[in-house]
Amino acid sequence: MSRSIAERLTAVLGPEKVETAETALHAYRHDYWVLSHLKDHLGQGAPNAACVVRPTSVADVQASLKAASEAGAPVIPFGLGSGVVGGVMASPEAVILDLGAMNATRFIDETNLLAGFDAGKRGSEAEAEVAAAGLTIGHWPQSVAISSVGGWIATRASGQFSTLHGNIEDIVWSIEAVLPDGQLVTLGKAPRASAGPDLRHLLLGSEGCLGVITGVTFSLRRAPEAQAFSVFGAETMDAGFGFQRELIQAGWRPPVMRQYDAREAARLDVRLAAPAVLIIHEGPAGLVAAETAAISELAARRGLAPAPEDIARHWLEHRNIVPNWSSFLERNLIVDTVEISAPWTAIGRIYADATAALQALPGCLNGSAHSSHAYRSGLNLYFSFAIRTEAPEAMEGAYFAAWRAIMEATDAHGGGLSHHHGIGRVRAPWLERELGPAGVRLLRQVKQSLDPAGMMNPGVLIADA
Amino acid sequence: MSRSIAERLTAVLGPEKVETAETALHAYRHDYWVLSHLKDHLGQGAPNAACVVRPTSVADVQASLKAASEAGAPVIPFGLGSGVVGGVMASPEAVILDLGAMNATRFIDETNLLAGFDAGKRGSEAEAEVAAAGLTIGHWPQSVAISSVGGWIATRASGQFSTLHGNIEDIVWSIEAVLPDGQLVTLGKAPRASAGPDLRHLLLGSEGCLGVITGVTFSLRRAPEAQAFSVFGAETMDAGFGFQRELIQAGWRPPVMRQYDAREAARLDVRLAAPAVLIIHEGPAGLVAAETAAISELAARRGLAPAPEDIARHWLEHRNIVPNWSSFLERNLIVDTVEISAPWTAIGRIYADATAALQALPGCLNGSAHSSHAYRSGLNLYFSFAIRTEAPEAMEGAYFAAWRAIMEATDAHGGGLSHHHGIGRVRAPWLERELGPAGVRLLRQVKQSLDPAGMMNPGVLIADA
Repeated sequence: MSRSIAERLTAVLGPEKVETAETALHAYRHDYWVLSHLKDHLGQGAPNAACVVRPTSVADVQASLKAASEAGAPVIPFGLGSGVVGGVMASPEAVILDLGAMNATRFIDETNLLAGFDAGKRGSEAEAEVAAAGLTIGHWPQSVAISSVGGWIATRASGQFSTLHGNIEDIVWSIEAVLPDGQLVTLGKAPRASAGPDLRHLLLGSEGCLGVITGVTFSLRRAPEAQAFSVFGAETMDAGFGFQRELIQAGWRPPVMRQYDAREAARLDVRLAAPAVLIIHEGPAGLVAAETAAISELAARRGLAPAPEDIARHWLEHRNIVPNWSSFLERNLIVDTVEISAPWTAIGRIYADATAALQALPGCLNGSAHSSHAYRSGLNLYFSFAIRTEAPEAMEGAYFAAWRAIMEATDAHGGGLSHHHGIGRVRAPWLERELGPAGVRLLRQVKQSLDPAGMMNPGVLIADA
Repeated sequence: MSRSIAERLTAVLGPEKVETAETALHAYRHDYWVLSHLKDHLGQGAPNAACVVRPTSVADVQASLKAASEAGAPVIPFGLGSGVVGGVMASPEAVILDLGAMNATRFIDETNLLAGFDAGKRGSEAEAEVAAAGLTIGHWPQSVAISSVGGWIATRASGQFSTLHGNIEDIVWSIEAVLPDGQLVTLGKAPRASAGPDLRHLLLGSEGCLGVITGVTFSLRRAPEAQAFSVFGAETMDAGFGFQRELIQAGWRPPVMRQYDAREAARLDVRLAAPAVLIIHEGPAGLVAAETAAISELAARRGLAPAPEDIARHWLEHRNIVPNWSSFLERNLIVDTVEISAPWTAIGRIYADATAALQALPGCLNGSAHSSHAYRSGLNLYFSFAIRTEAPEAMEGAYFAAWRAIMEATDAHGGGLSHHHGIGRVRAPWLERELGPAGVRLLRQVKQSLDPAGMMNPGVLIADA
């Protein structure tokens, strides 16, 4: 039993699927969490894992979990590494399970609008393949080109077109996963079921802690017949929130609706000097025409001013630029984004309190927000902050202070502390405020029953599990 | 320790909340499952429970579970008793937990469109209260006047307006429940969350097996500005299915869309001699106008014939009549309804095979179906059967033969075996075909972790749990 976990896995899977070279391991130490990049920048970066395993089949995943379980080695599933809350962080005894080589398209069904993929399929490639058939997954996270379809499930992701299309749980048809005990489950076979609890929801948001997602089938859409753009200026954020609320509660559902505060609006387009609402309308031509007209009328009635629609077109074309953390860290700038959601009556106060608290932090260069997902009963907010410190070592403290400002302002008004990035490590200390002590206890019970040894992605989601 | 469970509960809750009179117990022996009524009819009815407990608070529910747990007594949650799959069946040692006295409206929030109710609130009363404020829950099961809002959660119910409004999981905001260990959880506080698995889904569809739902908050809608009706005749069921598919996949979402086969259409209105599609359009006036026009054009292009719209109006006004089983059983007629769902390409074959199999059963007077819930990737079917037997004792065998015909035709084409009534007892033998062996094992693990003693509603959902 003195063999290392890497040796065991090599014996089971063959050497070509098990990496132990330092340089290979280095690239898998963490995901896109800015704090992990900051630690690297400070020379305090995460260690290498024991090995990286690259399964090419469900059987490989099962064999990997079995070997890791026997060796008592933690397993950290790794999609394409675009997570931003610390869902991946290597430890010297851990096995990184890289799903990136499981990236086949299993089928595209143009009649039922279904498409099945291996979990490691890159989002933009999956979308391009269905687009060639005139279809769309309709899920557009900013990370679409650097995230995997399995990662979308594991993190309960949201896309930019969610206001009509829903979030990932509204788009998924079935999920295939290997549970910690090696069992393969395929959950979901019909448009809808009442057959006990919907067990897909144990995997949606599981962040690698309850099993390994190996395949996903989506319920697609046909490419829309028509598309239109609307942009309006609002005098205040509250004016914009009121407009969005009335529009949604009247029964309109434009796929994209985003409200930028004055700071972000000005960055988006110099012609915008105040908060602005960008809308993209899509659907059958008659619906798009009716929606565009009604929303324009509503905006006029509520005193919002029409702005050039090319601002929305420009956003659509340039929306998926993901920042490079190094360029900030090199200048002692710590930056991040934090998304929350809340009922309509709380959203204005959360916006005001959180941005004020951010801007009061020493060295704060930016504390701003936009909304991007609207619901009948509330809205999300997506905060951005940038803080400059004197010394590189001060960035970590500034980072947590900014997070705390947003979490506390949200919690004080009863909002939800994570809209779509997940819990990972950065939100784990706040999980009890989100779920309540009994909710966390329930989650622990579920975790304990599926993963009694605690081998799956320890330290994520439930801080001490 | 020789005290009966009724004595224990009386000591804890007081005598006014614990019923042991024979006549009172008699009414709580089962729900609206026709097989339970048949057994009564045959003089083989379920026994009385040990007692009926009527909690009036969450603390009462917690105390009841604690006392039952200490006594090793099974607990059977009881909403308003409208379930049709055998989710309630008393046993002599069991405690019936009647939620009917917990029926308060907790709040109605006209800005955020939220309303909170005790779990035992009657659906039609909850709807009437929000309707007085110009709002709607938007959830319209046929049982709306005889079911509770907590029952909607426990069974993962669907309403007649689901094609736009979604099913109960799309309408619920938060769920409050007492877990078997007595812990109170309140899950859901924001429009959307990515904070681990959505634990509300452990209670949605739990059928009394994982805890006791004590409160529910819904995300409401404003009453629609406009309403319109469309009715079309189709030459064949497949022609209707093709029309529905194109309409939904084009991006239209009328809240109500129902397709009746020729038998059911003729019963609905004598002017309908072939399959028919009934549609109710609702929403902003511009949307309703555009949708009505586009769907009418689509119907013409696909060769469907317009029919009088008053047929749809008449359906809307008379839709919630629930049958009285006795009137059938007295004539040796066993009847039931069975709902399934499947991808579009399977739905026509399931319809044809299941109705043919029903009609081939000895004594079959009716084997028919309609659809009532449409999705991008498929459709539901709602079968009805009526079989006359020579002797009363033959009805049970005929009943299971009819169920088997529908389940096997659905399973053979890969469909889902329960759209919205749940598993209860009647579908429990089919659960493994729905979830797969590994899926059932996963469900067992979850059940075992939350209810290790198996005290919650034994015999339901997982047959031997």
